[in-house]
Amino acid sequence: MILCLVPETIYTTNFMTAPFIREATLQDTALILDFINALAVYEKLAHEVETNEQMIAETLFWGNPKAHCLICEIDGQPVGFALYFFNYSTWKGRYGIYLEDLFVSPEHRGKGAGKALLVHIAGIAVANKCGRFEWSVLDWNTPSIEFYKSLGARPMHGWDIYRVDGEALEDLANK
Amino acid sequence: MILCLVPETIYTTNFMTAPFIREATLQDTALILDFINALAVYEKLAHEVETNEQMIAETLFWGNPKAHCLICEIDGQPVGFALYFFNYSTWKGRYGIYLEDLFVSPEHRGKGAGKALLVHIAGIAVANKCGRFEWSVLDWNTPSIEFYKSLGARPMHGWDIYRVDGEALEDLANK
Repeated sequence: MILCLVPETIYTTNFMTAPFIREATLQDTALILDFINALAVYEKLAHEVETNEQMIAETLFWGNPKAHCLICEIDGQPVGFALYFFNYSTWKGRYGIYLEDLFVSPEHRGKGAGKALLVHIAGIAVANKCGRFEWSVLDWNTPSIEFYKSLGARPMHGWDIYRVDGEALEDLANK
Repeated sequence: MILCLVPETIYTTNFMTAPFIREATLQDTALILDFINALAVYEKLAHEVETNEQMIAETLFWGNPKAHCLICEIDGQPVGFALYFFNYSTWKGRYGIYLEDLFVSPEHRGKGAGKALLVHIAGIAVANKCGRFEWSVLDWNTPSIEFYKSLGARPMHGWDIYRVDGEALEDLANK
């Protein structure tokens, strides 16, 4: 839709079109896996990636998925992606949106793709009467933090996430 | 189900039964609101509660809710609640469970209600092939942190949550 803002009369091959956001489909599983791996490398956590095309297909494109994936294209080329799901605030009594992943290929940064993805999801949040839109950032990732603050986001200091996984999760379930 | 572990032959009015977990229903909206308010008072954030019975009913018990609420009872009395939803790990390619709220009334602590709720939800996570089970804790809440660690949870240091809400969310959606 944002593409429509670019008047055809000034479009030339040298003129970069605005980012275009579309929902991901089953045909995007390899692309999504590439983006997930590239983001993990950037976050210095590549060793933690366990997913594959089959798992992406099963969890995001079969049955009734609870998580949703968007692809950002510029000039018809996929340049980034975002994955989000709905969370819930008991204090607000409303759903919210949690952005699990946001990634733009390094060679396509500075073209508005990240902002376009965030604006698009904020629109989904507003359309669904969500009370908030949030995500996690590694505390050393200053460029991203400054970018998020420029878009109105604020850090929620004072909270720590605790996690149970692997064998500890099985053990807890059997206590 | 846990109730069944108590042999009837040793049940007396002085013998406390094990906690019993059930799914919340529309009839529990007032009870859930009481628990939400009591938890917010404990977290010194009572002024942030905006929800009411109508909002709880609409978001958790009408249509196709994305968040789920459990009630814990001891001797037939509701003593606590938990609210969770499914999240997603792109690295694992699997869903997880996020525990938004866990609360046990102060007068009923030490009877195993909190642990029973966590064990029950861990079981739901395992049954749904979830990769992880996680929640947020205020960093000054040492008693809870020690309790969670004793059940196998570990803190995920290095990540900060960023949030956009209210007017900033509307503004972002309209950028």
